[in-house]
Amino acid sequence: MAKNLTQQLIEQHLVSGRMRAGEAVQLKIDQTLCQDATGTMVMLEFEALGLERVKTEVSAQYVDHNLIQADFKNADDHLFLQSAARKWGLWFSRPGNGISHAVHMACFGVPGKTLLGSDSHTCAGGSMGMLAMGAGGLQVALAMAGMPFSLVMPEIVGVEVTGRLPPWVSAKDVILEMLRRYDVKGGVNKIFEYYGPGLATLTAMDRHVIANMGQEMGATASVFPADENVRAFLRQQGREQDFVALQAEEGASYDHREQLDLSTIEPLIACPSSPGKVVTVREVAGKPIYQSYIGSSANPGLRDFVVPAKMVDGRRIPEQVSLDINPSSRQLLEEISRNGDLNRLLQAGARLHQTGCNGCIGMGQAPASGRISLRTVPRNFPGRSGTKEDQVYLCSPETATASALSGKITDPRDMDMDYPVFNEPERLNDMRSLMLAPRDFSSEIPVAIELEKGPNIQPLPEFDALAETVSGPVLLKTGDNVSTDEILPAGTDILPLRSNIPAISHYTFSRIDDSFYQRAKTHNGDSFVIGGENYGQGSSREHAAIAPRYLGVRAVIAVSMARIHRRNLINFGIVPLLFSKPADLARLKQGDVLAVDNFPAQLNQGRDVVVQLSDGKTLTVTHNMNEEEVATVIAGGLINRVKNIGP
Amino acid sequence: MAKNLTQQLIEQHLVSGRMRAGEAVQLKIDQTLCQDATGTMVMLEFEALGLERVKTEVSAQYVDHNLIQADFKNADDHLFLQSAARKWGLWFSRPGNGISHAVHMACFGVPGKTLLGSDSHTCAGGSMGMLAMGAGGLQVALAMAGMPFSLVMPEIVGVEVTGRLPPWVSAKDVILEMLRRYDVKGGVNKIFEYYGPGLATLTAMDRHVIANMGQEMGATASVFPADENVRAFLRQQGREQDFVALQAEEGASYDHREQLDLSTIEPLIACPSSPGKVVTVREVAGKPIYQSYIGSSANPGLRDFVVPAKMVDGRRIPEQVSLDINPSSRQLLEEISRNGDLNRLLQAGARLHQTGCNGCIGMGQAPASGRISLRTVPRNFPGRSGTKEDQVYLCSPETATASALSGKITDPRDMDMDYPVFNEPERLNDMRSLMLAPRDFSSEIPVAIELEKGPNIQPLPEFDALAETVSGPVLLKTGDNVSTDEILPAGTDILPLRSNIPAISHYTFSRIDDSFYQRAKTHNGDSFVIGGENYGQGSSREHAAIAPRYLGVRAVIAVSMARIHRRNLINFGIVPLLFSKPADLARLKQGDVLAVDNFPAQLNQGRDVVVQLSDGKTLTVTHNMNEEEVATVIAGGLINRVKNIGP
Repeated sequence: MAKNLTQQLIEQHLVSGRMRAGEAVQLKIDQTLCQDATGTMVMLEFEALGLERVKTEVSAQYVDHNLIQADFKNADDHLFLQSAARKWGLWFSRPGNGISHAVHMACFGVPGKTLLGSDSHTCAGGSMGMLAMGAGGLQVALAMAGMPFSLVMPEIVGVEVTGRLPPWVSAKDVILEMLRRYDVKGGVNKIFEYYGPGLATLTAMDRHVIANMGQEMGATASVFPADENVRAFLRQQGREQDFVALQAEEGASYDHREQLDLSTIEPLIACPSSPGKVVTVREVAGKPIYQSYIGSSANPGLRDFVVPAKMVDGRRIPEQVSLDINPSSRQLLEEISRNGDLNRLLQAGARLHQTGCNGCIGMGQAPASGRISLRTVPRNFPGRSGTKEDQVYLCSPETATASALSGKITDPRDMDMDYPVFNEPERLNDMRSLMLAPRDFSSEIPVAIELEKGPNIQPLPEFDALAETVSGPVLLKTGDNVSTDEILPAGTDILPLRSNIPAISHYTFSRIDDSFYQRAKTHNGDSFVIGGENYGQGSSREHAAIAPRYLGVRAVIAVSMARIHRRNLINFGIVPLLFSKPADLARLKQGDVLAVDNFPAQLNQGRDVVVQLSDGKTLTVTHNMNEEEVATVIAGGLINRVKNIGP
Repeated sequence: MAKNLTQQLIEQHLVSGRMRAGEAVQLKIDQTLCQDATGTMVMLEFEALGLERVKTEVSAQYVDHNLIQADFKNADDHLFLQSAARKWGLWFSRPGNGISHAVHMACFGVPGKTLLGSDSHTCAGGSMGMLAMGAGGLQVALAMAGMPFSLVMPEIVGVEVTGRLPPWVSAKDVILEMLRRYDVKGGVNKIFEYYGPGLATLTAMDRHVIANMGQEMGATASVFPADENVRAFLRQQGREQDFVALQAEEGASYDHREQLDLSTIEPLIACPSSPGKVVTVREVAGKPIYQSYIGSSANPGLRDFVVPAKMVDGRRIPEQVSLDINPSSRQLLEEISRNGDLNRLLQAGARLHQTGCNGCIGMGQAPASGRISLRTVPRNFPGRSGTKEDQVYLCSPETATASALSGKITDPRDMDMDYPVFNEPERLNDMRSLMLAPRDFSSEIPVAIELEKGPNIQPLPEFDALAETVSGPVLLKTGDNVSTDEILPAGTDILPLRSNIPAISHYTFSRIDDSFYQRAKTHNGDSFVIGGENYGQGSSREHAAIAPRYLGVRAVIAVSMARIHRRNLINFGIVPLLFSKPADLARLKQGDVLAVDNFPAQLNQGRDVVVQLSDGKTLTVTHNMNEEEVATVIAGGLINRVKNIGP
């Protein structure tokens, strides 16, 4: 049977499982990437695995998130990551090189490869015929260790692209059109595979924009063919030899089909505060703006800066608007400096920031109170800009620039000029030579490389295996829909503690109950947490499992549990248990002392787990873990299990 | 009698007083500048004065300090400052335009003018024949209102400059040589006037470096003649018409004389953690470094970036070093982008930051723990970089770059290349057109301009006049040498509250006694603070007077008091009183209730003030205020007094 490209990519990497939607498959991972905000924990996990070197074809560690360095912590983290890359054979990209996704594509993107990254926008790599996915840190650490990546086989949506974009409409409008159709959950458990004659008009970097924000639909990945436009991109990077032509086989089938006629798309914009709240620019035109923000992994291409530069050429940004330019890579900054576009932007009054993720992840450039910010970034979740109750709109560079020039939200088709012509340069400055290459492990002389750990970098705590009997108090009983943000908050004070579990654990549950930490330290032993429905929703942060485990939590009993957090609990040795019936929730309260006898045996023998209550009665709860998960949680977590049985 | 240049400048601006060292003189101020970290309070003070517009020739408001915008507060402050500039007729420089001192010199520097700025490095303006001085915010607000500036007439040191700097030695080494001779207090109550044949070899921007860091010797100002090099600078800025030739009259005398033979100076470096700990670079050469930082108001010239660019051309910064480039102005960034130097730096591996003060004031780029940072900035006080126990060295761009290339502290004379030739361009891009000009007050139609105050910007509280009887408890008794940092701390959490006295007052005395705020709020009335020796030393921050006053403190009784803080207390209506004999300190303790009857009359009638104690006895203390100061403190502060009697 003719295979679509996604099926080809999965089949070529299939270690076990069947390619049927909904069934578990295990895939060989060729490449990994980490950024710094997640990377420190990945490296601490890799250290805990006790391996000598990474086993992928390419693993790269980028520094693009925590670039502010308000004190020693960010700087120490960077040095730690650099030493880890040196020790274990990763490529290392220093602060100033740029955003992981854009730099990785330029330096290492190869059609046909699998890429797993500890950043949700890793999926941008699908733009050049890769199967690229974001994942939790420990999953990436295990992929670095050569272990296959498990996922539930998604449904594949074939998107036939026809036509050509009209003037003033660009790739960002294409993905906003998809978000208008699918909203932020319509892509869950789906891979979007793009094909058709319209693709010839979209460059590899245009596709990067679309693949990147496929994440905002909840998609597992987006996949584009590797065609002549991908070859041109690789040639521009001096890597044409890495090109491999890839596309769906003639007559391939898809689980679903979608039509996208580029010629019908008009300038779109996502309103506050969701990437799915898409309307036409015309519908909101005229609102006065405070800021236009150019940059981020969602619009990282040279064209995304050159077109704005040509639009502002010879004009001035009005005094009430801040036009913020955030170069996505060192290569891009060099090119716009060389070709004069940087000066066109500066002379119009734009403000140039350092190369990196910057304001897209709330690291600076927060808008003023009550003011509108237009951004080419992928997300506008409430408060993500750093300003509470912010009003961030997502749009194309064309819309952001036209609005900056007029001082209000403006459809770029209303500009009094011709649409600027952009031609990709044949070649760009080499970027890979500014990456630090992995050391040569073939050297006969063993080299002892120390990890450089500043005072804020603490090893991942060791966790013991599940005891025969677990007994302890209910330290906390929560309501429904508790998110990982409430289990372990983010923010500028807490983010720098991500490589220090003892320190970050002080903030465990602090949004709900600021005495939790003290209560846990005073008790100093095994304990339980009781949750309601949808426990652990939201961000995939592992710290929401690691920190409670560090404080002694051995089991969570909830009415229902969010998928990723449930897996994180297992990965770090907390048993996820479910009430057999919701009414049982009322039988437990904070302070009750619970006990589970023969805990490992009960998990192995079936679905039921008997819990002894304070009042002498028993409560039967259940679990829904498979065999591997039970073995993992009994081992005290995935790191222990891997160390026990080998990767 | 022949006058030196300083005497000419003072005489031309003398409103009252005699030009004799140690006597008070009052000077007309032609120009003012503010930066954003001090400017918000200046504007709130100007608002409290109730005036319609500034009365100087030029007043400018820059935004160069708080550029990070972690949340709405910085952004709101910028908008507030912009609206204040629009309302009252100041020039406004938006974020991204650059560091106040460099931009002001380029846009507004005029030989022969006086300049007062709410930033200690305002003295850099002396590089072009101006009398330029830093001062507290309220002093600048009053100068904006057209009131003369009072200072104690300094001694004038005539520095005769001869010879020519050897290759690899530059202006930074000249001022480091001065710091080696004078250390950080040797310039107190002195103005350094430079003259002599050697000046022909120093450009206006070279002199800027020297005048800027005169501040680090404690000098009131540094003064250079306005000669052909200043004319060339103005021509480069398209303002040759503003040139006026100025120099000391033939045979002028000085209070002191100093010799500076440029040909004998070698590369120097200030060791951690004082600008006065100067040694030769050779003495500390070889220490491994983490960072080289190029930029700041202390080395803001084009040459300070071009010479490093030529030094790294075709080379690579080693992987362990971060070479941080901080453009001082939009004009400079445009020029190095245009001429290719930016790309020379980037291709060598340098990291480009936004234009502004940045790491020099601890806003980012903090070094890693225990690592050495070389910086071209003016100060290396402990922890100023953001990292506690930092190791910051101050040096020239040549030394910073040579060290970045070798990875260790390196005398630039050891570079294996010829000293790069730098020629100032005839013209630079116009910068003034990107400043927002004051509005036209001559318009017949009155324009109502609202100040834009975000939720964190609160008006300066109104303070009442001194009551006949002041009675209340001793809320705090401190030890000796309490600094303004202990009265009201700085730091990244507290700095954004500088435009919000009610909010920042929560931190009053928090380093000494974290219950002070609560005690003051509970008492909710007049109170006293008792201090030991040297009360209020350190930084000149006005908030250390305003916040206690806001909380009800009406008098401080201390053994002795630091000069600037004493004046700040008076300016905001707190009576500074002194123990007649130190032993009396023991008669008072926290919680005692004190009363002063006929308080204004007692201050007016003589030096003694009788205080009634809890135990029924009395204590006679003294004051040392002059007539104007007494009138000010009785009025409840300087703003009240100015409003009463008019500026």
